[in-house]
Formats: sequence, C-alpha cells, structure tokens
Amino acid sequence: MTQNLTWLDDVTFDEKGLIPAIAQDADDGAILMVAWMNADALRETVATRRAVYWSRSRERLWRKGEESGHVQTVEEVRLDCDGDVILLKVRQQGGIACHTGRRSCFFRRLDTVAQPASWQTVDPVLKDPERIYR
Amino acid sequence: MTQNLTWLDDVTFDEKGLIPAIAQDADDGAILMVAWMNADALRETVATRRAVYWSRSRERLWRKGEESGHVQTVEEVRLDCDGDVILLKVRQQGGIACHTGRRSCFFRRLDTVAQPASWQTVDPVLKDPERIYR
Repeated sequence: MTQNLTWLDDVTFDEKGLIPAIAQDADDGAILMVAWMNADALRETVATRRAVYWSRSRERLWRKGEESGHVQTVEEVRLDCDGDVILLKVRQQGGIACHTGRRSCFFRRLDTVAQPASWQTVDPVLKDPERIYR
Repeated sequence: MTQNLTWLDDVTFDEKGLIPAIAQDADDGAILMVAWMNADALRETVATRRAVYWSRSRERLWRKGEESGHVQTVEEVRLDCDGDVILLKVRQQGGIACHTGRRSCFFRRLDTVAQPASWQTVDPVLKDPERIYR
C-alpha cells in the first residue's frame, strides 16, 4: 500500500518528535517567541490558523492563549532549507507573547560595555502576569 | 573556591550542550537562519562580534562565512525568558545567509489553498551555490 506524501513529510522532527517554531510579528517582523511543536501541534496550527505548540514542561498540546487569551493568529507558515525549523508569521492578540507580560520573550540584551558583560532587561512589562493568569 | 558568575551562566544549553540561535537582519527584521551554538561558539560570537555556530553535521565550530564569505556581523545579542534561545541581530555580508544562495533559509511557504497543501519556494536564488562554494 502506498502512502500519499503530504507537506508534513517535508518537515524533519528531532529524535523527540519536536521541531522549534519561531513566532514573528506579521506586521513589523519582531520576533515574539520560540516554542516547540510536534506533528499534532503543527497539523492543528495549519488547520485552525491559530498557533498550537507542544509544552515540554506539561507534556501536552499548548494552544497559545488558552489561559492568557493571547492567541496568535497565523498568517503564514514557512520552513527552512533543512526542514527542521518552522517560522510562523502571526498576529498577536493582546500584543503580549511572553508569560512575563512583555511583548516578546527576547527582552534581555547583552550589554558588553558593562564590566563584566551582563544581560539587561530592555523591554517593558505591558501587563502584570498576575492579571494575565487569573 | 568561588566562581564568578558571568553572563554565560544565564544561558541554558540543552543536554547536548547546544542552544538554538536565530539570525535576524538588524535593519529590516527578516529572519535569515537558525543554527546551533555551544558555549565556545557563543563566547567567540560575543568576543568577535561575528556569528560563530556549532556545526552538528561537521561537529566543529562553524565561523559563518568561512567558506562563502557570507560573514554575519553581530549588532546585538538577545536571550529569551527561559534562557534557552539566542537571538542575534546581524548585518549579513553579501546579502545571502542560506547555502542555497538565497537571502534567508526560510524560503518555503506553505500553500494551503493548493489541494493538497504543499511547500512553495517563494524567494529567489541570488547567487548560484556553485559560485559561492568554490
């Protein structure tokens, strides 16, 4: 019996069955977060146009925004040359992707002028996490 | 004997000693590629302001551009909230990050209008790879 090849066959999952996925703001290109997907998460993301990840800590599908309301609507799905990284161009509801209440998870910048060099928080908290996760 | 904590102690490497690093164009925010770093690669990247990755296939440090000339000058280094993804804002020499001769490795877009859905190459080859890797 032959199997139909689908778009999912071009995706290379790692030995744990996961692939990293970058969420990028579809409007201005800001990188919001990186999370992991298994095949089910990727399939559901494509089917629903809403970002679904695999939570490695909770070991279950994580429909982004399920608790926070900070849903990501997916405008575009891209795959890199090796087929082992996914890029989502998204619209971020609430304007907050990070569980710390910031727009992006990449809010720490390495300050190499300081001695010793150190990570500096350079982006503001837009909403208190205690008000996000009630 | 106490050890001085450094910025590197805030970085969480995986069980293989690696961390994914995203290279983003410092000017327009385009995501150019994702590769992996070990501690040595990250340390050298910060020290030299030139992107250095860990090649998993060749199992050695990969100074981006060492063969192609497509060096990435690092303008900024960021770390995400979990400390397990690095973001580099770079200037891409030659305007080509991908070994296929394209600007970005993310040149395939999922076409979900087509039946069945499939990955479509949507970005042009800027330079023949045979001319890049001579």
